[in-house]
Amino acid sequence: MVVEHEILTRVRYADTDTMRVVYYANFLVWFESGRVELLRSKGIVYRDIEHLGIFIPVIEVQANYLAPARFDDELLVRTRLAKIGKTSMRFENEVYKLPSMELLCRGHTVHVVVGSDGKPMPVPDEIRAKLSS
Amino acid sequence: MVVEHEILTRVRYADTDTMRVVYYANFLVWFESGRVELLRSKGIVYRDIEHLGIFIPVIEVQANYLAPARFDDELLVRTRLAKIGKTSMRFENEVYKLPSMELLCRGHTVHVVVGSDGKPMPVPDEIRAKLSS
Amino acid sequence: MVVEHEILTRVRYADTDTMRVVYYANFLVWFESGRVELLRSKGIVYRDIEHLGIFIPVIEVQANYLAPARFDDELLVRTRLAKIGKTSMRFENEVYKLPSMELLCRGHTVHVVVGSDGKPMPVPDEIRAKLSS
Amino acid sequence: MVVEHEILTRVRYADTDTMRVVYYANFLVWFESGRVELLRSKGIVYRDIEHLGIFIPVIEVQANYLAPARFDDELLVRTRLAKIGKTSMRFENEVYKLPSMELLCRGHTVHVVVGSDGKPMPVPDEIRAKLSS
Repeated sequence: MVVEHEILTRVRYADTDTMRVVYYANFLVWFESGRVELLRSKGIVYRDIEHLGIFIPVIEVQANYLAPARFDDELLVRTRLAKIGKTSMRFENEVYKLPSMELLCRGHTVHVVVGSDGKPMPVPDEIRAKLSS
Repeated sequence: MVVEHEILTRVRYADTDTMRVVYYANFLVWFESGRVELLRSKGIVYRDIEHLGIFIPVIEVQANYLAPARFDDELLVRTRLAKIGKTSMRFENEVYKLPSMELLCRGHTVHVVVGSDGKPMPVPDEIRAKLSS
Repeated sequence: MVVEHEILTRVRYADTDTMRVVYYANFLVWFESGRVELLRSKGIVYRDIEHLGIFIPVIEVQANYLAPARFDDELLVRTRLAKIGKTSMRFENEVYKLPSMELLCRGHTVHVVVGSDGKPMPVPDEIRAKLSS
Repeated sequence: MVVEHEILTRVRYADTDTMRVVYYANFLVWFESGRVELLRSKGIVYRDIEHLGIFIPVIEVQANYLAPARFDDELLVRTRLAKIGKTSMRFENEVYKLPSMELLCRGHTVHVVVGSDGKPMPVPDEIRAKLSS
């Protein structure tokens, strides 16, 4: 079963740069929002996970930029849980421009689950169960 | 005695926006660097203060923008400790463009000293002493 | 007649800092979103204005921080057009935490209308009319 | 001949997040500074290139995060021009923590040279010559 989620966002002036397009690093912030909302859609509130002493930092990011996003563009960010490993998770993202659904950016992030001590730990069963349902 | 400090910085692409000038909020990040380096110049490492459970959050900021900064501009950020109260501190900042020393932005921040419990506490004597020397 | 508008936003990980609260400069980005959406609610699309060669840069910002915002908090940003002068506009903002409606931040921005040459110009009649209706 | 350049930077409060480490997207801003300064070291001022109507946007980024950077850490960012193609360039970056030279992050960006019309164009001979010298 594919776990996938979509959010909408709008480009702010703050997101853009002198080329009058969104600065490349800012797409990674939308990837973050995409992940957080995908998790929420499956009943997992990332903030609550952290309160349990479990963190899911990024260990890898990759993004390809196909076309620019500009100030005030409405965007759809699609996020997919591509893999849950023993201690890791991989999310894939696409950012589309609305209403044309032109694909602007495609990327992925890899995360590792760590405890308060910063050491990798298995993905907790409860999270695994929620993401598989 | 006036406690004053100057740092140099350069405008990055990330700092700019669609108007091809620095986005207004990003001047506040330079104010931060100015404060941190002013404190360091007086022997106060802000990171070490936090390790003691003492925090100095911002409770007020004000800035006037007189002329734009653009990508790759070299800037001088001047920071002045304008006041130390019982539990608060006020820093004043000016941002100049180099080499002309055109004044681009002028502002200030007010801070309150708080403990780990988030409650205001007197400015520690050691900090007060270093800032008065 | 008071021109006022409210938007909702959610604190992202990217907005926060080592104190585990929203970094002070990031409230200014929400002020921007508040202004852009207030204008849109009155039929003014800021992007279209710029295509006409009219810009409305910030010349002053002020903000008071009353309580921290944290990751994943839902916020209400209220924006009010406080004044339209001959060549300037003043917006006032409040940021509230939901659902308690605790006031976290209060501030304002002052803007000047400029043409493509960067020189101040009167607020265009069409904009003035829409904001007064 | 390897074209390589190193810059120093310091982690600002603004760069960090609730995990008390640098937010993953902010490493990409250091990659930018690394590229801009590598070019400058070879006599190429990116701002001047843009004034000629030549732009070098990012079309791909990849980064691996090996260890966290924290507030006030001093970092060394090493940038290497890994390849110049007909219309593209590839830069590789490493971010090290000082003074230990612990490797924190490794990544690369791919860029395409475009004209004012946004269409790919060959890397100008003058740029190619400077980068090969």
